[in-house]
Amino acid sequence: MLRSCAARLRTLGAVRGLPSGRRAPGSERRVALRSFSSEEVFLKDCSVPNPSWNKDLRLLFDQFTKKCEDGSWKRLSSYKRVSAPVIKDFKTHFLDPEHMTEEQMSQAQLFTRSFDEGLGFEYVMFYNDVEKRMVCLFQAGPYLEGVPGFLHGGAIATMVDATLGTCAMIIGGVVMTANLNINYKRPVPLCSVLVINSQLDKVEGRKLFFSCNVQSVDEKTLYSEATSLLIKLKPSLT
Amino acid sequence: MLRSCAARLRTLGAVRGLPSGRRAPGSERRVALRSFSSEEVFLKDCSVPNPSWNKDLRLLFDQFTKKCEDGSWKRLSSYKRVSAPVIKDFKTHFLDPEHMTEEQMSQAQLFTRSFDEGLGFEYVMFYNDVEKRMVCLFQAGPYLEGVPGFLHGGAIATMVDATLGTCAMIIGGVVMTANLNINYKRPVPLCSVLVINSQLDKVEGRKLFFSCNVQSVDEKTLYSEATSLLIKLKPSLT
Repeated sequence: MLRSCAARLRTLGAVRGLPSGRRAPGSERRVALRSFSSEEVFLKDCSVPNPSWNKDLRLLFDQFTKKCEDGSWKRLSSYKRVSAPVIKDFKTHFLDPEHMTEEQMSQAQLFTRSFDEGLGFEYVMFYNDVEKRMVCLFQAGPYLEGVPGFLHGGAIATMVDATLGTCAMIIGGVVMTANLNINYKRPVPLCSVLVINSQLDKVEGRKLFFSCNVQSVDEKTLYSEATSLLIKLKPSLT
Repeated sequence: MLRSCAARLRTLGAVRGLPSGRRAPGSERRVALRSFSSEEVFLKDCSVPNPSWNKDLRLLFDQFTKKCEDGSWKRLSSYKRVSAPVIKDFKTHFLDPEHMTEEQMSQAQLFTRSFDEGLGFEYVMFYNDVEKRMVCLFQAGPYLEGVPGFLHGGAIATMVDATLGTCAMIIGGVVMTANLNINYKRPVPLCSVLVINSQLDKVEGRKLFFSCNVQSVDEKTLYSEATSLLIKLKPSLT
């Protein structure tokens, strides 16, 4: 699916140097150009440390922030809501405007940012353009439970999908996931910090092939492996 | 992953006729036998209509409720929190008890039931034991957004995983998802009602093979198709 386009569209601005009009990091006020109606919303960068982040996540964040100093890696900002004028025509193509009520439109939030601080998905992504790699540092909050004490498989699929999709969007523009194939190797204890390493493996026309793994912080435990095929949308739909 | 065991363990009680000690539907008070500590929590059945359910979801609910009258189909109850004493040893095997803080343990909620009413996953599952089929009726709330206006692919993966996993748990006891493979055919407008049809295709020893599709209410639009391999856990882990 076209998931996490929210993050991705902001990402395009950050990574490709598109004008973003950003203010001080972590406390931005922007006009959200939703295709339904223009509205002003407060947007806070969610991919910086907050009090819910544990020691492991903070240490990894610091390590990757250091890698950003020479420009080889870039941290991607992430918001609960986003402007997405570039996919307006895509929406027109696929979406029945009468489908959602005004109230629902005003409530819409990016799935991976829709929990209160610390309860759901706490994460930050770092991108390496030369290697076409994306690393997602992910702390799984207590509201993501599957079997008691363990992370829900759907939550893992969600973060894998978001990571691969964001990487694909930076490389290929507006994309759609056509396939997501996940092998679950071992259950993940709830509230773990995970490292999702993803990379572009191959490009065939409009097809982008990715792979990734989900590991523990010390890289000693491989929790999951995944592959994904993402399709660049035709220019007529973007 | 061992996802939605919450629902599944309750399901086992409902479908297999295990003692559940249930009170009036939709308003239960039970002792939650979490392996960390015993605590008394209020459990409300989330798989019955609430004010956020739209007309489509209510109509489908009524249709399937009617199918339950002759006993061929059964509606599965679903809760934010569950008792899971049967997998205590599994937890001991995989989980470091020092991993989660007491506060985190007390906050833990089933991922698919962790949103406020109407904002996230609104769903109900119906099971047909003769056909080994599970149908999930799913209304996607505004907090499950991917690209603006559309459902996040991770949210679809989550509900597919929950549906197949619940079906597998009824058939095979405590199970773990080993593989989830999803083909996304078409973007799903946010706030849609979807019908997830799943079925057991094959059993090989401890391996359970499932397939499913995700369709619109009128069955005219195929949004996604998926297959999954789930493994029955060894008796020593259950």
